[in-house]
Amino acid sequence: MNSIKENREFMKANFNLLENIETDQQKEITQPPLEKPADKAAPTIKLPKVKGDTIKNNDFYRVMKERRSKRKYNNQHMTIEELAFLLWATQGVDQIKGDNYATIRPAPSGGARHPFETYLLINNVKDIEPGIYRYLALSHELQLIKEDDNFEKHSLDITLGQKFVAKSAVLFIWSCIPYRSEWRYNISAHKTMLLDAGHLCQNLYLACEAIDWGTCAIAAYNQSLADTLLRLDGDDEFVVYMAAVGKV
Amino acid sequence: MNSIKENREFMKANFNLLENIETDQQKEITQPPLEKPADKAAPTIKLPKVKGDTIKNNDFYRVMKERRSKRKYNNQHMTIEELAFLLWATQGVDQIKGDNYATIRPAPSGGARHPFETYLLINNVKDIEPGIYRYLALSHELQLIKEDDNFEKHSLDITLGQKFVAKSAVLFIWSCIPYRSEWRYNISAHKTMLLDAGHLCQNLYLACEAIDWGTCAIAAYNQSLADTLLRLDGDDEFVVYMAAVGKV
Repeated sequence: MNSIKENREFMKANFNLLENIETDQQKEITQPPLEKPADKAAPTIKLPKVKGDTIKNNDFYRVMKERRSKRKYNNQHMTIEELAFLLWATQGVDQIKGDNYATIRPAPSGGARHPFETYLLINNVKDIEPGIYRYLALSHELQLIKEDDNFEKHSLDITLGQKFVAKSAVLFIWSCIPYRSEWRYNISAHKTMLLDAGHLCQNLYLACEAIDWGTCAIAAYNQSLADTLLRLDGDDEFVVYMAAVGKV
Repeated sequence: MNSIKENREFMKANFNLLENIETDQQKEITQPPLEKPADKAAPTIKLPKVKGDTIKNNDFYRVMKERRSKRKYNNQHMTIEELAFLLWATQGVDQIKGDNYATIRPAPSGGARHPFETYLLINNVKDIEPGIYRYLALSHELQLIKEDDNFEKHSLDITLGQKFVAKSAVLFIWSCIPYRSEWRYNISAHKTMLLDAGHLCQNLYLACEAIDWGTCAIAAYNQSLADTLLRLDGDDEFVVYMAAVGKV
């Protein structure tokens, strides 16, 4: 991240380099798990199954046409059904292929690696205590990391003071566990993972539009504060993207 | 792109570095154009205005749920209305804000910079000669770069021999003109541009699903062959992502 010249290089394809690299997959090293293991001691909340009946504006063309980055929110709470829909739309697991080889989700990921975990800073969701949670995509549950009513402070701290975020109901924070994709693609994994993070965030935009909520993605955040807040080591797992969601 | 360690670093947020950098925008250097200027001598094809009536499956929930990467295509041609819809869904310009300051499109881009151009390798679109084209998003036109009936050879060459691509009707190729975003974000622009490319590609997936076409994104391509084919210099403009589209 030091020079424009180096950064432009990173944006280019380097899959040709894999010809000379034996990947961990090729070495037959055991594949990492599809999901970061759940903390068995932590409380979980079963999320309602998503059936599409939460969707107010199910007109696909209208959703695409009216998609905008929205930063003005009122203080209406989100329902757990709405939250479950947004989680499914971004990272829900529709199918597991092979012998736990890959997940199929509404947004694609290169080689179906899906190297992300979803964390939520919950501010205003009905029947859920404010705090820090993780989405367990395989079981469609929320896991509590820490009850916490400092949403305003945390959200401002980690987003470099972007004030609109403090008024949101939920802050989605996606982490990356890079080895999940490096196992297969080694040094060609990283550009692809950023493209993949874009895929799932676009689904959040459209899904919010469909239920009359608004979102705005956040790439400008404080890496170390965000990682620390979520208790990530910043190397084998680190925050890669965020999006605030609020009622519009 | 040399080591896993360096590549992981690239995936992290570095917006804090902008505190110590005066960007070209802050220096009041003239903003680059919203679109690469059209070649005034080249033939153009006016595209039909998109109204949504091309969409067969307008059920948003179903579109999200049935989204898959699809690589098996039959040889049915695409209509120009379908092509216009896919171009709009990915990069169409819905609005220009300020004094030519920014465009608003169905997929978001950090700071509304939209640093991409869309190229098409057309194989099988009714009433359009096979060849290499560019989408002029501001005027919703296609501009001919070169008539060419070597789709199979070109598509295999630039995608490292991925055979399914040769059977597609159209290969979407997105280039990046990085300065469009660097002008505002300097060395913090590059990660964001990859996230942005993911946003627009996700819209292609969903838009294809909505009209009974299939797509599969391609990050594994030959950078220099792709740039050369599109006559890009590989530095100030280079290919960043691709997706094959075919009838399913």
